[in-house]
Amino acid sequence: MKLKIAVLPGDGIGPEVVRQAIKVINVISKKFGHEVEIKEGIVGGIAIDNFGDPLPEETWKICEESDAILLGAVGGPKWDNLPGDKRPEKALLRLRSGFNLFANIRPIPIFDELIFSSPIKEDYLKGVDFVIVRELTGGLYFGKPKETRIENGEEVAIDTMIYRASEIRRIAHVAFRMAQKRKKKVTSVDKANILECSRLWRKIVEEVSKEYIDVTLEHMYVDNCAMQIVRNPKQFDVILTENTFGDILSDEAAIITGSIGMLPSASLGETKKGLYEPIHGSAPDIAGQNIANPIATILSVALMFRYSFDLENEAKLIENSVRKILSLGYFTKDLFNNNPYAKKLVSTEEMGDLICSAI
Amino acid sequence: MKLKIAVLPGDGIGPEVVRQAIKVINVISKKFGHEVEIKEGIVGGIAIDNFGDPLPEETWKICEESDAILLGAVGGPKWDNLPGDKRPEKALLRLRSGFNLFANIRPIPIFDELIFSSPIKEDYLKGVDFVIVRELTGGLYFGKPKETRIENGEEVAIDTMIYRASEIRRIAHVAFRMAQKRKKKVTSVDKANILECSRLWRKIVEEVSKEYIDVTLEHMYVDNCAMQIVRNPKQFDVILTENTFGDILSDEAAIITGSIGMLPSASLGETKKGLYEPIHGSAPDIAGQNIANPIATILSVALMFRYSFDLENEAKLIENSVRKILSLGYFTKDLFNNNPYAKKLVSTEEMGDLICSAI
Ligand SMILES: CC(C)[C@H](C(=O)O)[C@@H](O)C(=O)O
Ligand SMILES: CC(C)[C@H](C(=O)O)[C@@H](O)C(=O)O
Repeated sequence: MKLKIAVLPGDGIGPEVVRQAIKVINVISKKFGHEVEIKEGIVGGIAIDNFGDPLPEETWKICEESDAILLGAVGGPKWDNLPGDKRPEKALLRLRSGFNLFANIRPIPIFDELIFSSPIKEDYLKGVDFVIVRELTGGLYFGKPKETRIENGEEVAIDTMIYRASEIRRIAHVAFRMAQKRKKKVTSVDKANILECSRLWRKIVEEVSKEYIDVTLEHMYVDNCAMQIVRNPKQFDVILTENTFGDILSDEAAIITGSIGMLPSASLGETKKGLYEPIHGSAPDIAGQNIANPIATILSVALMFRYSFDLENEAKLIENSVRKILSLGYFTKDLFNNNPYAKKLVSTEEMGDLICSAI
Repeated sequence: MKLKIAVLPGDGIGPEVVRQAIKVINVISKKFGHEVEIKEGIVGGIAIDNFGDPLPEETWKICEESDAILLGAVGGPKWDNLPGDKRPEKALLRLRSGFNLFANIRPIPIFDELIFSSPIKEDYLKGVDFVIVRELTGGLYFGKPKETRIENGEEVAIDTMIYRASEIRRIAHVAFRMAQKRKKKVTSVDKANILECSRLWRKIVEEVSKEYIDVTLEHMYVDNCAMQIVRNPKQFDVILTENTFGDILSDEAAIITGSIGMLPSASLGETKKGLYEPIHGSAPDIAGQNIANPIATILSVALMFRYSFDLENEAKLIENSVRKILSLGYFTKDLFNNNPYAKKLVSTEEMGDLICSAI
């Protein structure tokens, strides 16, 4: 198979973690006989500095011509005070909406070797394994009007949360299909006691659920869900939610794993094209030191093989190789100290090489 | 001093926990020589059943004529499928907006005796002590348009997040004044990289902060805050945020304390009139069994004495009496099992009596 991949390293630790991921792409493709064509594009703060645009035309074209996009991280203090429209994050929003990537998938697995570094007690975590399916191109992020006006002599700001039935329907299908391959439970999160959008959400999700009789559906208010993720994360299989709630809950869920340097994400649409990125940020404070953990980006490559290329065996092999290396006691700096499983401290480069050799 | 208090027991465990709180009001008032006038009103599901309205006119009048309102809890499965407008929660919204109670205050303290029951590891919790100041009458909860329309043959739901500069300014002042009496730090939570409301929020909060030079202001994105509450709750003093974010974050913060049956809240406006309620729900599964924990409601009474009556000594005495009883090893069922500090299991009634006797 021919794999056309756009790679956007971005800012901070982006380039160094992406470099390891590229190694993995090459090794796994060689092993399974796939031809790879990687094109690099410039994105984020570095693109603002060089082209005055976080997502230059040229980068967009590279993405358009590829089957999948791998992104490192964007942003940093240098660009934090730019107006909303000119910021590194804008590149993300444009990629999401431009390619209609409406489904953000974030698996929340627990690695036994990393439970020590979680803020949560061990017995709450053992066996936790869920996925968050976040709607990514609707709601408050994109709704209009979105503006600040003067009314009666004072500033008034407005954002609009808006959901069409069809937007809810398509993301619900993603969640139910995912649950069918897992523990067969969908927890749909909303605020139906307050929001019109949530009431429509609940209604459409109910409708969609009728097509998946093998999957159990439950509804949960978002405030309660924010509690339950900490109190009893084992109860979840697939959490389905809208854009803003998903943003908040997925970061909360990430932190309980104790391994934020390990968590990948996929943003998918109706076609096979997807955007894959680690959930962590650009971590400018440790950039360029060869100490960042490349595993979240490498696991994002596994998701790419699974969702964009339908190559499940390749995806599994990448994931198992990561688990193998951890089980041997190799850890980057973020996870080395106080880790009862740690045997050898390795650099970003070394971690990349170890995972490649395990493959 | 004459204290005119409206008491709304509500549904589920509401009546039994409120009964204990009334005892406390009577005992503390007697001790300090205050005259108390308590009027009971019907609210929530039971009001729907009896009057077809979660907040009957009669109840509203009682509240209007009082200086402070104590509420137990509203809601339950029986009323869960009613339309938005007819639900028990609607009573809460009408009280909040009707009396212009725009500032919801939720202290998040850690009781050493309860750390065992937190999902979070002990060393993350020791010394945690912060307050959430949530804007309560603006944003997505009340913004118009709030409706579902048909567009191009499909349903489209819309909620509006709207903030006027003056709404932001008044709640910011509440947070800064509170920080001045505490650890002198305000963390303002928003999503300024995406929302117009958040950008105005940030601007006005910056302006207000100039009047409080002894208080440090920091800004945090809501997704990051959802992580930080679990990862490092010690960093916070006063968290200031808008309505929807506050709803989610305050429930998340509550759960880390391990003592959701212990947490009070106050909803305040420009006048001294306030609404006081435990943050827990009506817990219909344990209602009427005399096992519910009345402490959250009793601590809500302490907040009432502090904020509505300016009676700080009375407030402190209630709080210290609660701590005293816990330190003696008395616990209700929710906090008894596996509790290394527990000596004697007590009922709802007994807990109320113990706290009264300590006063
Ligand atoms: C950077 C920001 C715009 C983005 C979001 O809010 O979606 C990020 O938090 C995420 O979750 O991918
Ligand atoms: C019951 C509900 C309407 C309410 C809210 O969302 O404000 C509750 O969750 C709260 O936090 O007081």
